[in-house]
Amino acid sequence: MYKRRLFTPGPTPIPEHVMLKMAEPIIHHRSPEFNEILTRVNENLKYLFQTAQPVLTLTSSGTGGVESTFVSLFSPEDTIIAVNGGKFGERWVKMPRTLGLNVIEIKVEWGKAPTREQIEKALRENPTAKAIYLTHSETSTGTATDVKSLAKIIRNNSTALVCVDGITAIGAHELRFDEWGIDVCVTGSQKGLMIPPGLAFVALSQRAIAAMETSKLPKFYFDLRKALKSYKKNDTPWTPAVSLIIAVDAALQMIRTEGIENIWRRHERMAHAVRAGAAAMGLKIFSDSPSYAVTPVWVPDNVEWKQFNKILKNTYGITVAGGQDDYSGKIFRISHLGYYDELDIVTAVAAIERTLFDCGWKFDIGAGVRAVQEYFTGGK
Amino acid sequence: MYKRRLFTPGPTPIPEHVMLKMAEPIIHHRSPEFNEILTRVNENLKYLFQTAQPVLTLTSSGTGGVESTFVSLFSPEDTIIAVNGGKFGERWVKMPRTLGLNVIEIKVEWGKAPTREQIEKALRENPTAKAIYLTHSETSTGTATDVKSLAKIIRNNSTALVCVDGITAIGAHELRFDEWGIDVCVTGSQKGLMIPPGLAFVALSQRAIAAMETSKLPKFYFDLRKALKSYKKNDTPWTPAVSLIIAVDAALQMIRTEGIENIWRRHERMAHAVRAGAAAMGLKIFSDSPSYAVTPVWVPDNVEWKQFNKILKNTYGITVAGGQDDYSGKIFRISHLGYYDELDIVTAVAAIERTLFDCGWKFDIGAGVRAVQEYFTGGK
Repeated sequence: MYKRRLFTPGPTPIPEHVMLKMAEPIIHHRSPEFNEILTRVNENLKYLFQTAQPVLTLTSSGTGGVESTFVSLFSPEDTIIAVNGGKFGERWVKMPRTLGLNVIEIKVEWGKAPTREQIEKALRENPTAKAIYLTHSETSTGTATDVKSLAKIIRNNSTALVCVDGITAIGAHELRFDEWGIDVCVTGSQKGLMIPPGLAFVALSQRAIAAMETSKLPKFYFDLRKALKSYKKNDTPWTPAVSLIIAVDAALQMIRTEGIENIWRRHERMAHAVRAGAAAMGLKIFSDSPSYAVTPVWVPDNVEWKQFNKILKNTYGITVAGGQDDYSGKIFRISHLGYYDELDIVTAVAAIERTLFDCGWKFDIGAGVRAVQEYFTGGK
Repeated sequence: MYKRRLFTPGPTPIPEHVMLKMAEPIIHHRSPEFNEILTRVNENLKYLFQTAQPVLTLTSSGTGGVESTFVSLFSPEDTIIAVNGGKFGERWVKMPRTLGLNVIEIKVEWGKAPTREQIEKALRENPTAKAIYLTHSETSTGTATDVKSLAKIIRNNSTALVCVDGITAIGAHELRFDEWGIDVCVTGSQKGLMIPPGLAFVALSQRAIAAMETSKLPKFYFDLRKALKSYKKNDTPWTPAVSLIIAVDAALQMIRTEGIENIWRRHERMAHAVRAGAAAMGLKIFSDSPSYAVTPVWVPDNVEWKQFNKILKNTYGITVAGGQDDYSGKIFRISHLGYYDELDIVTAVAAIERTLFDCGWKFDIGAGVRAVQEYFTGGK
């Protein structure tokens, strides 16, 4: 039997009853039935982001969701600051430049999070900056940023909008949009929300909504003013991805039932368990500030990534993510974002353990899964 | 028993085995399995558009697909000509204006198609026009444009790119992208392709691809140069809507099996059958040039649209589309685009017939379905 299991940071596995929702006959998007679904989705998205403000749903990938915030909030030549500590941070530098903004880049070494000092310096040197973009969980490096602390620093030292790429963070890391003073937060559907890719979600503060009024960058499909106007009637300006909205409705109901604090705690525990398992097998964690969504691990010496990945996938059916750019072949990333429980972590570590064994890596077989069990039970 | 049936021009009904495809466990979009699917989709999309040129797949609604063509092919202040004969044509005037283009509008009365003379005049008066946008099937009015003839006129009289909104036309109306000299054609997933909304498809001629090289409008998510570059490796620049691509793969295989000419013929026959049924019940067709995708019908005198629609929906489970703007309450639109066969047309006409009867409309009950049967059999 060849059983597949996905441990990638998006798409993440979809709960079985949510998959079945997408197999139901389609309904029309301008109908009372769909309006009822979107009303519930809109309400539950506020819970997910811990906000009383609107959270808009767009039909696009997360990248499209982030683009919507640039084109809808800013004008040509506006200065914004963006943190680049990986493939996604890099994109949030390139994209606004391409769209006509003046982008101040805070370059951060891969595997490190931006520091308080870096943010303060950038704000001091660019007092006219309209916004700072932070990546809460940088998927490419498995590195988390302390959004709570940095948001406070930004709020205390400037009028810049606090904009957060929450694409692989929402649902894994604590995020309190209103309480922390965040202005913009974007996520995608194929991450903590546990459904297929195709939807982006954008939370907006009143300051962000006010910025939209004076924004002059050209926009149409991604015009959040249009989206906000429709949102107020629980509608969308363009035909939405109906089946994905029906799926996210079911997923959000699961999230409410489990409770967002419990979900954050579950992810934190799963991340710590993976790290404990990795350490017990002699693997080193790549990042200084590892994410709760995805754990980045150095490929050990004497193990060849391609062979490792082939065995992991073909023999054990497990898909993880490799390293990117300079870290291709050097690190790999184990995702535990979304529809995973503690036993899934045992499974992932067990498969990695067997693969390392097959690759001839010298270690105490069984140490990985035992460390996971010890972490979860608190025993030793 | 309350059985629902959708006769709306998008979303259209989804074949049962295609629905089930979307209930399968998700796979990663950077994997050999997904690459194989996208390779087949890319090949079959060429067949659908009858082209040897690339057909790009974007994660967005059809509106996003059309936007991608404006931002990717043109530069600020470029002149384009757009035909506005309904809600969608109107959007293809507003959108490029908002994005910074100089738009010459050919205003066409609702329910009429643009004439040869209107196109020739616009070309004569605007010799620098970079493109003309035509709506093949204007959904809001159920009106078809003779793209084949107009494309020839445009090609013979100018260097303007022939750009076609094929959103509700592809799969219903004959369209031969290469043979007819079309440069750009866009469709959406929830139309003739029979899957849920969330994907747009953009076919591009070599002239259109050449235009992309000099285009200066700002773009990122909708940059078709990026999409084309990835397309060549059967990949996408951003995370695609994986489950919808898996669905469209199955739908395209159905389309190949039936054969595109057969599909066009089926739609033509279904449209004629609906018109025959409508006429037999004493209903008048709204358009001078009715579409094969959707038939627009005047709400008869003494019948109140709201009551009619309520009975049709609540008693007979049938959803059709109402009129828009000035025609709200005055016309309604019966869709026969996508997954419909001849017996479905009997069903739709039977339900409309019973609803008219319930509304007190005076006619020979049974005449509608008889006319449909006569049309299909050629008998009388």
